[in-house]
Amino acid sequence: MKLQNLVGTRFKEKPADCVIDSHALMLRGGYIKNVSNGIYSLYTPMKRITDKIENIIRQEMDAADSQEVLFPVVLPGSLWEESGRYQSVGDELLRFNDRNNTPMVLGMTHEEAAVHLVKEYGNSYAKYPFSIYQIQTKYRDEARPRAGLIRVREFTMKDAYSFHTSQEDLERYYDIMANSYFRIFQRVGIPEVVSVKSDSGMIGGSVSHEYMLLTEAGEDSIVLCEECNYSANMEAADTTVDNSNCSPARELEKVLTPHCKTIEEVCTFLNSKVEESCKAVMYQKNMTDEYVVVFLRGDYEVNETKLTNLLGEKVHAAVVTEESGLVAGFCGPYNQNAKCQIIYDKSLEGIESLCCGANEVDYHYVGLNIKRDIGDVTYVDVSKIQDGGICPCCGKKSIKISRGIEVGNIFQLGTKYSKQMGMTYIDKEGNTQIPIMGCYGIGVGRLAASVCEAKHDDYGPIWPISIAPWQVHLCCMRADDPACKEAADKIYKELLASNIEVIYDDREVRAGAMFADADLLGVPVRVIVGPKNLVNGEVELKTRDKKVSMNVSVDNIIDETKALIEQLFAEINSKVQP
Amino acid sequence: MKLQNLVGTRFKEKPADCVIDSHALMLRGGYIKNVSNGIYSLYTPMKRITDKIENIIRQEMDAADSQEVLFPVVLPGSLWEESGRYQSVGDELLRFNDRNNTPMVLGMTHEEAAVHLVKEYGNSYAKYPFSIYQIQTKYRDEARPRAGLIRVREFTMKDAYSFHTSQEDLERYYDIMANSYFRIFQRVGIPEVVSVKSDSGMIGGSVSHEYMLLTEAGEDSIVLCEECNYSANMEAADTTVDNSNCSPARELEKVLTPHCKTIEEVCTFLNSKVEESCKAVMYQKNMTDEYVVVFLRGDYEVNETKLTNLLGEKVHAAVVTEESGLVAGFCGPYNQNAKCQIIYDKSLEGIESLCCGANEVDYHYVGLNIKRDIGDVTYVDVSKIQDGGICPCCGKKSIKISRGIEVGNIFQLGTKYSKQMGMTYIDKEGNTQIPIMGCYGIGVGRLAASVCEAKHDDYGPIWPISIAPWQVHLCCMRADDPACKEAADKIYKELLASNIEVIYDDREVRAGAMFADADLLGVPVRVIVGPKNLVNGEVELKTRDKKVSMNVSVDNIIDETKALIEQLFAEINSKVQP
Repeated sequence: MKLQNLVGTRFKEKPADCVIDSHALMLRGGYIKNVSNGIYSLYTPMKRITDKIENIIRQEMDAADSQEVLFPVVLPGSLWEESGRYQSVGDELLRFNDRNNTPMVLGMTHEEAAVHLVKEYGNSYAKYPFSIYQIQTKYRDEARPRAGLIRVREFTMKDAYSFHTSQEDLERYYDIMANSYFRIFQRVGIPEVVSVKSDSGMIGGSVSHEYMLLTEAGEDSIVLCEECNYSANMEAADTTVDNSNCSPARELEKVLTPHCKTIEEVCTFLNSKVEESCKAVMYQKNMTDEYVVVFLRGDYEVNETKLTNLLGEKVHAAVVTEESGLVAGFCGPYNQNAKCQIIYDKSLEGIESLCCGANEVDYHYVGLNIKRDIGDVTYVDVSKIQDGGICPCCGKKSIKISRGIEVGNIFQLGTKYSKQMGMTYIDKEGNTQIPIMGCYGIGVGRLAASVCEAKHDDYGPIWPISIAPWQVHLCCMRADDPACKEAADKIYKELLASNIEVIYDDREVRAGAMFADADLLGVPVRVIVGPKNLVNGEVELKTRDKKVSMNVSVDNIIDETKALIEQLFAEINSKVQP
Repeated sequence: MKLQNLVGTRFKEKPADCVIDSHALMLRGGYIKNVSNGIYSLYTPMKRITDKIENIIRQEMDAADSQEVLFPVVLPGSLWEESGRYQSVGDELLRFNDRNNTPMVLGMTHEEAAVHLVKEYGNSYAKYPFSIYQIQTKYRDEARPRAGLIRVREFTMKDAYSFHTSQEDLERYYDIMANSYFRIFQRVGIPEVVSVKSDSGMIGGSVSHEYMLLTEAGEDSIVLCEECNYSANMEAADTTVDNSNCSPARELEKVLTPHCKTIEEVCTFLNSKVEESCKAVMYQKNMTDEYVVVFLRGDYEVNETKLTNLLGEKVHAAVVTEESGLVAGFCGPYNQNAKCQIIYDKSLEGIESLCCGANEVDYHYVGLNIKRDIGDVTYVDVSKIQDGGICPCCGKKSIKISRGIEVGNIFQLGTKYSKQMGMTYIDKEGNTQIPIMGCYGIGVGRLAASVCEAKHDDYGPIWPISIAPWQVHLCCMRADDPACKEAADKIYKELLASNIEVIYDDREVRAGAMFADADLLGVPVRVIVGPKNLVNGEVELKTRDKKVSMNVSVDNIIDETKALIEQLFAEINSKVQP
């Protein structure tokens, strides 16, 4: 189509509220428009990109024998009651009543709808395994949407659900899906995506993996080992702490520590190592307000996901009252008389002499030896692994914490949903069994934004040919010059006739404006028709990433363009695993 | 794919709650599953059908230079405040608050979102005309969802919006869209769709047309002239009444009519013609509860849409209290002292001697001559046109009322939305102007159900080749017979290799069950591989509609199948206008 007719405005200035590049470029390039907090309309270029991404996903899902279906956006609350998620999920589940006062929700994932759809079908072992997927609008009432299409409230997602009669069969299919996911990310042009072990969170189940695009702009922390292949997200990485070189035991002693409230202040004041201090982090359980105190090494942080998983319920930062018996700033495990649940993190294990709060304003203990002074306690892992920490896999101090964007995830759900919702089948022996499920998600818009984040320069996105809104950007540099216009028009027609997707800029604008727009649209191949080259019977053929730049005879431009497009596809496909 | 693996159950019994055939067949064939009142999940066969319909729509929209975009499902209430529809639309607009208590709505149409998207882009006359469309999920909180996919709460709809600088240009594009619409209906296999002039209702604007599939199962009444080309929906058809042969004037006289409350009872009792009676229909305005009394000829009915348009506000059936001064059952225009708005329908015009209520229990007047006894009154058209009535176009008594399903609509919106929402452009002379809009909708699921309604027999749908879930249904009649299975497997592979969409039934089931399933899936071409024909080196080639049925040599089956598919496409395309 002609750029002249493309609906949407492009502009040069970076919008003030954009924290990541892809967000700014998508606004500047006329890809998206904000309608409400975390809710966007898509202009034609972004629609074309997401269509191509969806088709790649579709091909890979079909190849993995998953069948495309469509679930509703609006679901009855009763369906979510069946699974228990109507109660258990927080405010991100949008609940409302319809005109008849029936509770409804907006689907954020569709495990319930999937079980509902196949409950009768899957009544016999002979039907298994099977897999269904949809590509549909989801809504998640995020508290803090941010970063353009990376974290939104409304989004298009591919979600697949598989059903199995054994854990082995689920694992077999899980591996197939894992492979499909790598192929999808490779085909859309970001082969650098890694998979990491993850905490399953709200979805439930046991084993799960996230697919991460490593980038400083990411909002997730990813744990990678530089020595072995270990990878996990922050929530799932086991923390191992080496306290073998700690100071020897000494006598327990109460010391005055006036005005020292943080563990760092205390250690500085006492001239002791923060690695041999014990800090307290105080929580309350959401349901009962019961106090929970976590003791951990002064230089570690609590991983609240691990804590939640341990407790089996959510917690919030404690509001410390006088009645609680807790002494904020001076809380320690020795002589602790407050009514609370006490948790010892593994980071304290093996330290012979600790500095800790004395449960009395302005006093700390030094020389605490937990085993000697308190007795045998159980140590659990509720702290965050640290950069430079010990790899739980190879044991070397080789952990690196990176930032990343989660572009997909896969879960082994087990029987959580099928059991709750009463889905059963009759096995070969005539016994009633509960099917085992897996689920597999990719956010389409987030994936598009992630590709932009990974592939762009200061002037715009550099779209991989496989998902670019068009394959060729044709520029007529002098639309007011009849020869130039005629040559460009002819090339336009021939490209279209060759089934090449082309956006044609024949506006009478300055070269600077024309190229700025072309850069913002990020089309991988550019054909430039200008009067100077035309004198020699030539036009320019370039790639958006500047790796290719040559003059081509007008007579050969169609063939050369086709060859360049094929080459770009071949480069992408060379990185796609079988 | 193999039918064995197709998720979904097919069954023989007609579900009890289905009032139309397409609803029953779509449940029986494993096309849809009800999730909530008026909300369905789609199984793979229906997803494949709607995908094909969407692609046909997409091709026709693109050919009409409309650009595909995507609007959100969830929209901020503030956007609907701008257009005034947040207040003016009833309960069918689903309103809710998000977690921050911000009013939001679920999009039922997207005029507001369309204006929002192009408001800045369309700031100069040079950008016009332009047109955008989306294919996206909508939600309308219908009071009474019914008839399967015909009237639902959640649905996928193509909605297009065009923007113009003159009424002439809107009309030019409106005609292009009208043509696109006919082509869409022809291409999906229902060339019998007619367009009718319609009332614009909630959407607003002046000229609009509905596309109607004529069928007894339809819920809309359509007015067609059997003599000229006139067509309209019930709401838009002007009623013309011929009272030229009525009885001459006589003296006004009050008569006792004990226990006669309906106009029919009165006429029977007085032995007078219902065509020369004046009945009263009483309403109250929704906003003020003010009474509105419509007087019309005894044999006509009030068209409440016409009445609403006349009053500029909605009404409900009156609750007649003593204080109102109205005498239910005996209400008439003469000596009417109640405080109410009185409307005279055109059907009364020209009658010289009317029977009507006397505003006194058990009394009526006979011989009322409105002009003589009441004076000059204004007659307006608020009644429903009748079967056999006068065509407002050719004047003949040739009106036929038919039932139909609305499968699409197009509207000339004018400046209703652009003006309310402050969208302007600068014209050639530098003046600020308001763009003129059109909008154009097609419900995808309803269209699929309508095709099923038009094309089916007792055993299942008969899908047109252009939207069929698969092109070929391959039946292996004896999967336990190695020769039969081998031949069928070979044909399956060859069909797939020829890029023919094939569903392959190689289950070990009885012929009856196999054909019943094939009928329910409604695939247009059927290839049957059975031991008897194989002895002669032949297989059967049939169409679902039974018009083709022949034996074909195994060696030719691929070519013959291809030729038959081409022939079926050619039959459809022969009915598509240029």
